Amino acid sequence: MSTPKKQNMLIAQSGGPSMVINQSLVGAVIEAKKQACIGRIFGSLHGIKGILEEDLIDLRKESAKTLEAVAATPSSGLGTVRMKPSPADCTRIFEILRDYDVGYFFYIGGNDSAETVHIINQEAIKAKHLIRCFHIPKTIDNDLRSNDHTPGFGSAARFVACALMGDNLDNRALPGVKIDVIMGRHAGFLTAAAALGRTYEDDGPHLIYLPERPFSLPQFVKDVKAVYSKYGRCLVAVSEGIQDSKGVAIAAKFSKEVDSHGNVQLSGTGALGDLLAAELKARSSIKRVRADTFGYLQRSFPDCLSAVDSKEARAVGGVAVKTACQGVKSGSIAIKRKPGKTYKVSFERVPLKSVARDAREMPATYINKAGNDVTQAFIDYAAPIVGPLPKPGRLKGVKVKK
Amino acid sequence: MSTPKKQNMLIAQSGGPSMVINQSLVGAVIEAKKQACIGRIFGSLHGIKGILEEDLIDLRKESAKTLEAVAATPSSGLGTVRMKPSPADCTRIFEILRDYDVGYFFYIGGNDSAETVHIINQEAIKAKHLIRCFHIPKTIDNDLRSNDHTPGFGSAARFVACALMGDNLDNRALPGVKIDVIMGRHAGFLTAAAALGRTYEDDGPHLIYLPERPFSLPQFVKDVKAVYSKYGRCLVAVSEGIQDSKGVAIAAKFSKEVDSHGNVQLSGTGALGDLLAAELKARSSIKRVRADTFGYLQRSFPDCLSAVDSKEARAVGGVAVKTACQGVKSGSIAIKRKPGKTYKVSFERVPLKSVARDAREMPATYINKAGNDVTQAFIDYAAPIVGPLPKPGRLKGVKVKK
Repeated sequence: MSTPKKQNMLIAQSGGPSMVINQSLVGAVIEAKKQACIGRIFGSLHGIKGILEEDLIDLRKESAKTLEAVAATPSSGLGTVRMKPSPADCTRIFEILRDYDVGYFFYIGGNDSAETVHIINQEAIKAKHLIRCFHIPKTIDNDLRSNDHTPGFGSAARFVACALMGDNLDNRALPGVKIDVIMGRHAGFLTAAAALGRTYEDDGPHLIYLPERPFSLPQFVKDVKAVYSKYGRCLVAVSEGIQDSKGVAIAAKFSKEVDSHGNVQLSGTGALGDLLAAELKARSSIKRVRADTFGYLQRSFPDCLSAVDSKEARAVGGVAVKTACQGVKSGSIAIKRKPGKTYKVSFERVPLKSVARDAREMPATYINKAGNDVTQAFIDYAAPIVGPLPKPGRLKGVKVKK
Repeated sequence: MSTPKKQNMLIAQSGGPSMVINQSLVGAVIEAKKQACIGRIFGSLHGIKGILEEDLIDLRKESAKTLEAVAATPSSGLGTVRMKPSPADCTRIFEILRDYDVGYFFYIGGNDSAETVHIINQEAIKAKHLIRCFHIPKTIDNDLRSNDHTPGFGSAARFVACALMGDNLDNRALPGVKIDVIMGRHAGFLTAAAALGRTYEDDGPHLIYLPERPFSLPQFVKDVKAVYSKYGRCLVAVSEGIQDSKGVAIAAKFSKEVDSHGNVQLSGTGALGDLLAAELKARSSIKRVRADTFGYLQRSFPDCLSAVDSKEARAVGGVAVKTACQGVKSGSIAIKRKPGKTYKVSFERVPLKSVARDAREMPATYINKAGNDVTQAFIDYAAPIVGPLPKPGRLKGVKVKK
């Protein structure tokens, strides 16, 4: 590998926004400014849609101050899209990239976005069009293969942990059954993060249901009743992606929307939570049953950040640009955790196909035997990524004798 | 008024929890420890239910460290209840208070809780049982009469403002229509706070619907279409308490639960948001429509606090105890705003009946003519209570010429 020739670069964001996806954008732009092989720096608006529509902005025209302000801002500053390119799209993309003398292409997103980069890279090779194609990881779902964890997860997990911590206090003050529906299509990592908010022995979530284990309504009702008779209340964290024993998402029964990557829409509706609450009311004598669906807050709440997540998101953007400028032709930047007690990570270039399309699930060691909670191994894994959480106080509560 | 004789005090929390209700509890306990007329300090668990069940704790046994940790913790540390006392309940309450030599009663809550204190006070006067009855204000709904604003509102409003700020960034990145359902039974203050998160001219929420103005589905669809054709997207903040022209809450159509104060359950379900999304899909060609219902997060999220709100919540607890110890027999502590450009408040004792039962609505000057947004007067009113918010960065976005 020799230093590649000077050409322009294009960067874009794709898939669901996150709290720190702009850190990766800004990390890449700042690194690009240092690299002799990078000419102009184009941002494409709304992912590859912006390329096809030639809707590009000049990122060298952004001041350092603006870039830092954008880095600290949640959601995708360049806009985003959910779009899988056809071979015809790719041909058109190559024509446009040639017109703008783009030799470096960076795409920030999850497994579907990695698939997009992989397709573009494969088509480029077929077309003998030399373009360095890089995927920069981002997903609150934490389901990219080859990664210990992904940028965006830590902050979203922090939101979920804080939300459940608060909701546990609420449920303790005003007892009943509370069901919280959390994002995550196939992987339960984000729902599992609900457990990080526990402090005291009786703290909820008392039950955690993940897409990795088949969900049975009768078992759910049985589990809730058992917790309720022990504590007089029950807090439940449920993934929006929970599936029946045939692998059909329970929430998919209410949805007809499918995106171009074949994903059925699960978020943006309270139907799953309401179904579970209604079933519970019908099958038990518990009166106070409530359900909340956290929705898009999990990926965009401005006041709730993991410092580790922000830092790593910034880093992967920079490493991707550096790697391309070292002459590597394509790849994704994966976060690997170093062995040992202290939390340390390294960033490693991996092939596009190792992260594209297929998502990873939670390892079995992170889920309890009953399939309704996480293990200490998961807590140990996730805690350093999420960072220190608030510690709720509790009254000692010395009873007054009658 | 002379300094009253030394007797024990009892304090409890009632109604929906808030982020800062424990500040008021701790403010009262700390002040009580300074007062010569206060003997033992009892906390009743779950409001007046704890009195009736003699489920009391000794708050003098709590260390200063624990009290401060609890003060900083959301939700009701003593537990809460929604319960309107009958005359028979009152008689039993007086017997128990006499047994425990309680001469000072403090109840932290909203208008329903103030009604409870008012009933107990009236019954005590009838029964010639001298007990000093004080209400300490708390409500995220901000709907207590005689108050400029109420403890709990500032922090919940901060949550809503941040949530909408983030959701606006999300909606801008991935355009469509997004509907956010926010708490507030009769008063739109909390929903109105959604406007505080706006920074740029095109920022949402683009439409805000409050319980103070009749809600019409056809007008809603018309409004959304107009915004959508202007910005290619639309973010909507809707109060859970929106009513039709006959004053019937739209959400009440899905609910059968009523509490002892006569309130129909509106929270803890996504039905209203889903109804509005479904109607919009049916009556327009807009494809991407999502709805989130914020639910209980608004009143219990540990990471999101207004410093002003915390400080004032602490103060009202202390002022209530001080006032009782000055010989005043009953009342509520109201927050009044001093005239002038700089934000300053004073705390004033007001009669119980001036805050009990009936709630206040948003003043008409805070709502725009079309009834689908707030005015600058509302922003000026609410901003100092909520405190400084994060400022989202935005790319300058200099377009690249084709």
